[in-house]
Amino acid sequence: MAAPIDFWFDFASPYGYLASLQVEQVAARGNRAVRWRPMLLGVVFKTTGAVPLMRKPLHGDYLRRDVPRFARLIGAPLTWPEVAPIGALAACRAFYWLEGRDPEQAKRFAQAVYHAHWGMGRDMGPVEAVAGVAVGVGVDPAELTEAVQRPEVKDRLRAVNEEAQAAGVFGSPFIVVDGEPFWGADRLDQVARWLETGGW
Amino acid sequence: MAAPIDFWFDFASPYGYLASLQVEQVAARGNRAVRWRPMLLGVVFKTTGAVPLMRKPLHGDYLRRDVPRFARLIGAPLTWPEVAPIGALAACRAFYWLEGRDPEQAKRFAQAVYHAHWGMGRDMGPVEAVAGVAVGVGVDPAELTEAVQRPEVKDRLRAVNEEAQAAGVFGSPFIVVDGEPFWGADRLDQVARWLETGGW
Repeated sequence: MAAPIDFWFDFASPYGYLASLQVEQVAARGNRAVRWRPMLLGVVFKTTGAVPLMRKPLHGDYLRRDVPRFARLIGAPLTWPEVAPIGALAACRAFYWLEGRDPEQAKRFAQAVYHAHWGMGRDMGPVEAVAGVAVGVGVDPAELTEAVQRPEVKDRLRAVNEEAQAAGVFGSPFIVVDGEPFWGADRLDQVARWLETGGW
Repeated sequence: MAAPIDFWFDFASPYGYLASLQVEQVAARGNRAVRWRPMLLGVVFKTTGAVPLMRKPLHGDYLRRDVPRFARLIGAPLTWPEVAPIGALAACRAFYWLEGRDPEQAKRFAQAVYHAHWGMGRDMGPVEAVAGVAVGVGVDPAELTEAVQRPEVKDRLRAVNEEAQAAGVFGSPFIVVDGEPFWGADRLDQVARWLETGGW
């Protein structure tokens, strides 16, 4: 099997959520694995001066109409969260802590966080909420709450955010196939085509 | 035939160019006509505080890679213009002047401007360049050069830009089907599906 594809996303991003429900299937058809890479877009935005789409005039209104429409199209559950955009610091740290010991469990955790936040509309900012969701994938909530405070876990996320910037990630989702970047949930068909053809 | 679909775009926008090569076909399959609506995104950006994608850090690099890749995928000629982004004031005014007397000629003119700018890489900011391209679709260049200075033509474009803002247009291309907005060249498949199904 060729190298895995990188799936960069922010838990606060609804388009990241929509892509998360399709990326494994797209990759599998291309005989690839997926490396899930949650990150904090806010860190990139500090460099680029960008603001979250949902806070932009006009664009924010469009997003609130487009995301539910997109979700209906692909049959994705969607409940607009009362708190949005969240700061996904705790969720990101927890992911990389889990990944260090079990990448598959970390992926299931990420899917559970996305489902709770965008599928069910729950506020996934607070570490208590993150720990509560983690229980569902077999993680001890007390251990998670302690782990996200460890300096090495904080450093790991910092390093990942730097890696994201070096890879040119400026939005969510952002998929990289053998160095080739694709931005946006609406580019999964191009990703699929790229995997199928080896590029064009 | 149901109401035409609105195709909003800025001549400076490469994604608008890519969409311009496909939108007529997509609409025709849905038994619709297309109302071409060139506008000045810069006017909207003054309200929203946005900056052109190609001038954004990271995003600009992505765009310069993504646009040629997208063009290859759909078989579109592409030559990166030395001058980009252009100010498309003269081209826009000329379009609405022409539209007032012959909408089909205006559409052919818009296609010719896009082809010269993004297909062949020519600077289409200056009115002389716009007039030169207009010759190819049967327009007298001296008449065009004079027409774009008429107060009623300037007012017409101003009104269109206000109409764009009222319609929620914040990017290019931006397609509106019976009040339903779709942003981006990568959404033409959703536009096609919407036309086919009447919405989902």
